[in-house]
Amino acid sequence: MAKMLRVNMSTLEVNEEKLPEKYRNMGGRGLTSGFVLDEVKPDCHPLGKNNKLVFAPGMVTGTSAPSSGRISAGGKSPLTGGIKESNAGTPFAQDLGRSGYKAVVVEGLPEDSDKRWLLVIDSEGARLEEVSELKEKKTGATVEVLKEKYDNHDFALVGPAGEWKMAMAGICYNDPEYRASRYSGRGGLGAVMGSKGLKAIAVEKRMGKVELADEDLFKRGQRKLVEGLRKHDVTKPGGTLNSYGTAALINVLDQAGGLPTNNFSSGTFEGAEKTAGETIAETVEKRGGKGMMGHSCHPGCVIQCSNVFPDEDGEELVSCLEYESDWSLGANLGIDDLDQIARMIDICNEVGIDTIEAGVVLGVAMEAGLAEFGDGEKAIDLLEEVGKNSPLGRVLGNGASFTGKAYGVTRVPTVKGQGMPAYEPRAVKGIGITYMTTPMGADHTAGYTVAPEILSVGGEVDPMTPEGKAELSRAFQATTAFVDSSGYCLFTTFALLDDETAMEGMVETVNGVLGTDFSVDEVVEAGKEILKKEREFNLKAGFTKADDRPPEFMREEKLPPHNDIFDVTDEQLDSVWDF
Amino acid sequence: MAKMLRVNMSTLEVNEEKLPEKYRNMGGRGLTSGFVLDEVKPDCHPLGKNNKLVFAPGMVTGTSAPSSGRISAGGKSPLTGGIKESNAGTPFAQDLGRSGYKAVVVEGLPEDSDKRWLLVIDSEGARLEEVSELKEKKTGATVEVLKEKYDNHDFALVGPAGEWKMAMAGICYNDPEYRASRYSGRGGLGAVMGSKGLKAIAVEKRMGKVELADEDLFKRGQRKLVEGLRKHDVTKPGGTLNSYGTAALINVLDQAGGLPTNNFSSGTFEGAEKTAGETIAETVEKRGGKGMMGHSCHPGCVIQCSNVFPDEDGEELVSCLEYESDWSLGANLGIDDLDQIARMIDICNEVGIDTIEAGVVLGVAMEAGLAEFGDGEKAIDLLEEVGKNSPLGRVLGNGASFTGKAYGVTRVPTVKGQGMPAYEPRAVKGIGITYMTTPMGADHTAGYTVAPEILSVGGEVDPMTPEGKAELSRAFQATTAFVDSSGYCLFTTFALLDDETAMEGMVETVNGVLGTDFSVDEVVEAGKEILKKEREFNLKAGFTKADDRPPEFMREEKLPPHNDIFDVTDEQLDSVWDF
Repeated sequence: MAKMLRVNMSTLEVNEEKLPEKYRNMGGRGLTSGFVLDEVKPDCHPLGKNNKLVFAPGMVTGTSAPSSGRISAGGKSPLTGGIKESNAGTPFAQDLGRSGYKAVVVEGLPEDSDKRWLLVIDSEGARLEEVSELKEKKTGATVEVLKEKYDNHDFALVGPAGEWKMAMAGICYNDPEYRASRYSGRGGLGAVMGSKGLKAIAVEKRMGKVELADEDLFKRGQRKLVEGLRKHDVTKPGGTLNSYGTAALINVLDQAGGLPTNNFSSGTFEGAEKTAGETIAETVEKRGGKGMMGHSCHPGCVIQCSNVFPDEDGEELVSCLEYESDWSLGANLGIDDLDQIARMIDICNEVGIDTIEAGVVLGVAMEAGLAEFGDGEKAIDLLEEVGKNSPLGRVLGNGASFTGKAYGVTRVPTVKGQGMPAYEPRAVKGIGITYMTTPMGADHTAGYTVAPEILSVGGEVDPMTPEGKAELSRAFQATTAFVDSSGYCLFTTFALLDDETAMEGMVETVNGVLGTDFSVDEVVEAGKEILKKEREFNLKAGFTKADDRPPEFMREEKLPPHNDIFDVTDEQLDSVWDF
Repeated sequence: MAKMLRVNMSTLEVNEEKLPEKYRNMGGRGLTSGFVLDEVKPDCHPLGKNNKLVFAPGMVTGTSAPSSGRISAGGKSPLTGGIKESNAGTPFAQDLGRSGYKAVVVEGLPEDSDKRWLLVIDSEGARLEEVSELKEKKTGATVEVLKEKYDNHDFALVGPAGEWKMAMAGICYNDPEYRASRYSGRGGLGAVMGSKGLKAIAVEKRMGKVELADEDLFKRGQRKLVEGLRKHDVTKPGGTLNSYGTAALINVLDQAGGLPTNNFSSGTFEGAEKTAGETIAETVEKRGGKGMMGHSCHPGCVIQCSNVFPDEDGEELVSCLEYESDWSLGANLGIDDLDQIARMIDICNEVGIDTIEAGVVLGVAMEAGLAEFGDGEKAIDLLEEVGKNSPLGRVLGNGASFTGKAYGVTRVPTVKGQGMPAYEPRAVKGIGITYMTTPMGADHTAGYTVAPEILSVGGEVDPMTPEGKAELSRAFQATTAFVDSSGYCLFTTFALLDDETAMEGMVETVNGVLGTDFSVDEVVEAGKEILKKEREFNLKAGFTKADDRPPEFMREEKLPPHNDIFDVTDEQLDSVWDF
């Protein structure tokens, strides 16, 4: 029997339930989005008692399938007002997969908002324990305290920003070495967890095993996928991601004129080279000590794209310095100092906020005149306001759209209230279409057309043309919805797109776990069903086509160096949903 | 030839144009909403170059018609994101009516955002003059400076809040004695004016006369209307409004259990009596000096509901202490000290913000724990942050929804982002329906069903029942759209509703000015056409039925003393638009 946990924060009861039959073959995003559509009032206040927070490991998460330690968190987003799924790679995901609970649904609001609670899921049963001593404690210190008592567990938790209900608060998880550094960052789900008084969740390691419906099929698929990952230039050991991390993209996007710089006012950055993945790898090697490239966010990852960035003395500064954070707190702010960028990532990790949103916020704040572009020390000061919960910190902590409104700024790079990631829509049209149309708000992971547009993965298309991009974005969004449900890291798709056998293998592992008979073609269809549900929630919440549009300035201001606007028409944008 | 002015802030050109023929028989709100729908991109940024700010005097404004000195300002609201019309009573309205310009359309954005401009409309022509020396000057001081040079003019202007583009900034006008005290307060149009660098407009008094198409008809109508106003208990000299001001409603609403108290957590206020209109009148009489009741916002008003509130020494403290401000900064905050309330109104007037929104903001701030309910001195401190443009001031200055979001508050009494006025939807269901469904955001003046629900004017209906209220609200909204176009003060409707002859007279004055042949019945139809345009703009801007809903807590929390929720169904709300 597939089972789930329901945690009522109003009554402080934890109940094991049978997973509804219709959710039987779902996992990850498919499951969180299903629960949110079915159980959350679309017009509820995201921080009120009627919102729910749903955790679900992927379909294969907890098995030995490679790079599959992903957890999805879902709910109504305080940042966008729409549905949200935000996933992360962490051993916590694998533990939850092995606990047998396909989903954890957290609902209600505690009567006493000053108390803090820990949900423990282990062999002694699932229960809530009061941990009010952890109130407003930063993430690193929280993990340290939790680990003392629960030394065979992994954790999900919120930092103070979540407790303060800031709309850019994320949900933090520990990495394999217990760094509070992995995040369901986007969309403010940390504020939902904080609003419910749930400071953390502890899940015991290896409570059980994921049942395999067809072990042979699973193993066959697993081999194909592992081989595919080990072969592909992007994902192989010693390949791009493993050697330079995701920040290998800095130079690539800069050369493509699509690296948003100084709050999306240019597509190239003078300091790109100084913040590039190659430079990170060199610096890590030069400084030595505790630094490392090729770090994993969870055991069993073939790709190992993460890193630990050391300071000048070789002491650990932060994990990890990846592309999006490197860009958002770097090029986007005109900052080219890796140490300053690393310090800001550390602040985000500790306070418990999304690094992408934080960088976009600071870009808007600079646009408003609160600091000069390029002034790293002032940027750090501003970011520290968030952790002080000062009035300015509350403005910034509520995201880029909010900060823009606070200061009357018209150049605000957001869609549905969520800050844009590290690809300029005016220079990479397909990813722009994904930003505008995904139910998630501006999100590169929702349909990464950058692969064929910039990286020549899964084909090769001109990034500057809008033609054919709606179809491309739709296909990527659908496939991604399935991958996000499977539990596989999105980075497996580099291999999946270029290697039919790897794709076959991925689907076989899913069928091997669930006993289903998905074909490769059906993956896209299954993804579309998930997208439809997410869109349905948003429509019920009051979203319209007007929410699937770029910020006005991107249709009016030409972006150097290509000097193009976002020339995708409304009709092209809307056509993404013609299915 | 009917003419208009077009003011381009990008090129700093002022051009006289022919008023488009289709607007020929329009005025006030009908005209501003027509221009906004026709000329403003619904999805534009409210503070960007594509928004426009439109001023239009009413159809009869500038004539000797009684209580008709109203000016409408319109544009896309930075507060609601939808269409906005906000009208005020001031001699400026009458001057503009007599200038012959049926509308002034301000568009574009100045290149240099540090400069400030004055639009002068007088016998020397219409022109822009640089007045950068007035940058961030408060309203009173601004009027003083302007008056030195333009001593035969009246003024529209923004305070610093408008220049800082705060979403609760209003447009200020002088009263007959040149107090900076009359406001197009709601919806943040002051921020639109501020964004355009337009600090003020000066219009010469009596540049000309309003042409009358049929002087006899006009005079006949005028006599009927004056008689009606002089006869009705609410509007007559020595009647309720004239003797006690609009704050006569404090006791009435308190007794009806519909006076929102402590951020809409009760419908009765212990301190009601201490802040009631009757007490204001007593205090004014007792203190003497410069205080007065029965003050007019513009010459030629029969009703004279305004006042000048003196301090203990008889020195002028503020004009005026009217119901909405008295409530928003009083009962709504649990404050029962008239002097504290008066000081807060003065701060609002000087900084240039809407008193209703300011009070709702402070209620939400108290809910967030920034001050205790009832703590007047702390409330004043908070309000003063707005005038300091501090980070906290920027939070508060952007309105109640914004403040609620900044602090993660779930009890936020707003609709479409605009703070609710002084009538509790859970105790007066019809006005609640108006709040939810008017394109303006929560606005009592958009369809004042309080008249029959509470005041037994225009009939008598049970305020607690939802039955028949959608129809009632629709009828009131339609009539109001016409009245707001005519230039008549909404308070004329007390007489219009109870007195057919007065209603006839009102319509005759309009026909007398325009040469039209509106019948009384056609007034409602003409009003509906305006509503449809406003709704059309909002739909294009992305509004849906989800925006016509109460805040969640009003459907869940029972309001003392009646202990009822807002039990109007979604279907009933939506039926307002079935026409």
